[in-house]
Amino acid sequence: MNIDRNAPVGVFDSGIGGLTVAREIMRNLPSEKIVYFGDTARVPYGSKSKDTVLRYSRQIVHFLKNQGVKAIVVACNTASALALGDIKKELDIPIIGVIDAGAKVAAAETKNKKIGVIGTVATIDSGIHERVLKELCPQVQVIGKACPLFCPLVEEGWLHDDVTTKVAERYLEELKVCGIDTLILGCTHYPLIRSTIREVMGENVRLVNPAYETALELRDLLSELDLTGQENAQEEFPYRFYVSDLAEKFTDFANSILPYDVSMTQKIDIEKY
Amino acid sequence: MNIDRNAPVGVFDSGIGGLTVAREIMRNLPSEKIVYFGDTARVPYGSKSKDTVLRYSRQIVHFLKNQGVKAIVVACNTASALALGDIKKELDIPIIGVIDAGAKVAAAETKNKKIGVIGTVATIDSGIHERVLKELCPQVQVIGKACPLFCPLVEEGWLHDDVTTKVAERYLEELKVCGIDTLILGCTHYPLIRSTIREVMGENVRLVNPAYETALELRDLLSELDLTGQENAQEEFPYRFYVSDLAEKFTDFANSILPYDVSMTQKIDIEKY
Repeated sequence: MNIDRNAPVGVFDSGIGGLTVAREIMRNLPSEKIVYFGDTARVPYGSKSKDTVLRYSRQIVHFLKNQGVKAIVVACNTASALALGDIKKELDIPIIGVIDAGAKVAAAETKNKKIGVIGTVATIDSGIHERVLKELCPQVQVIGKACPLFCPLVEEGWLHDDVTTKVAERYLEELKVCGIDTLILGCTHYPLIRSTIREVMGENVRLVNPAYETALELRDLLSELDLTGQENAQEEFPYRFYVSDLAEKFTDFANSILPYDVSMTQKIDIEKY
Repeated sequence: MNIDRNAPVGVFDSGIGGLTVAREIMRNLPSEKIVYFGDTARVPYGSKSKDTVLRYSRQIVHFLKNQGVKAIVVACNTASALALGDIKKELDIPIIGVIDAGAKVAAAETKNKKIGVIGTVATIDSGIHERVLKELCPQVQVIGKACPLFCPLVEEGWLHDDVTTKVAERYLEELKVCGIDTLILGCTHYPLIRSTIREVMGENVRLVNPAYETALELRDLLSELDLTGQENAQEEFPYRFYVSDLAEKFTDFANSILPYDVSMTQKIDIEKY
């Protein structure tokens, strides 16, 4: 396997949420180029079956490979939960998801061994966090809770809003009753309502944002494989963005959260891959 | 054109919402067979572009034609708004949407000529209700309001819930301030939270549910074209259901709202059409 260390890293998500992961890679791995794909035509993934999420993820991986990426980050918890295992076996370049890195931090930091996980229906139903956490720390107790309204609330922009607080109180009640001391934000949208989640859960619960942890895992992985990008190989446009629909709306959102000026997003027909 | 009058009617929606239209056809046109398709893999349509909704709708129409339908009902407001005009020109069997029937009733019943329309972002942004209503009644004033959280709230099952009431109060406030006397429920999910909308809007505003009106329009159209199904041609299984994902979940939901026992829903790969 002969991989170009100065090739870009591929990052994908069902839509805009994965930009919170891309943001951490930009901040922490400044010498890496990125090709980002957001599947904005078929978002959300969190209410779909494993079959469908796997088929969509394979198409995206195929597209990213065509773009010549050296490694892939699945910046979507649902795709990481339902598709990463199969795709890893089929792929000849390194690929990581967002589940493992968050689980590692949660397992290391919990004191009372009670960890909560919030995410989409598909992610929570998959039980993947519990499996990974139990491997890391068999005596841990994991309480999962699907929060299907959080994504639409974020997409609607109601980030600091009493409706969002009310919904959060409803969803998080059973996690509070269980007395968890650590909570994994198991969907890439959730860091955007972190302050509401913090307010509802209180100051004593550690909130784990897997985006940051995943960027660090990527750094270690590239270094280990001798694939770290060279600083002097950076181009004028190190970050490229592709979506399956609504490129302009995506560009606006990307510009509101990234430390980088996104001038253009290109729309492609992902069903052809 | 030689169409079999005892062939089924094709009905499609982005997901489950169109079942409220299928339900009215079952109730009001008991001699008609139905082939229903719900695009549960790619739902929702309401946040997508015209290009994408048109491409998806063409695939579904192609699938329904393959099933030998005699006419098609676009039981999705977003697809009716963004795709029906183009598809009508390309098709050799009759096709109707849900916009016209609702608009006709609203135009006929408003006293103060102030009509509100609620729907998805794509439906409201298309401005189609205003165009159709102004053709029917040029002096009418139309106030549109997108309500993107209503669908996820219905899908979450929070039909009678104080969060749903709070969201409805927020969305409907400007329609109340404008003093509308008629409100079109411009998304097939909304009849399922009709009582909340009624409570917020008050008793004096007429709520128009296009599902019922569309069933009557279909009856008139079939009669006019001499395509009404013959009662003695009904089969043991007059209603067939297809989806692009999560067939079991769809069957459960269908059984909760239809006056008919749905024993099986078949999953197909719609991208192949």
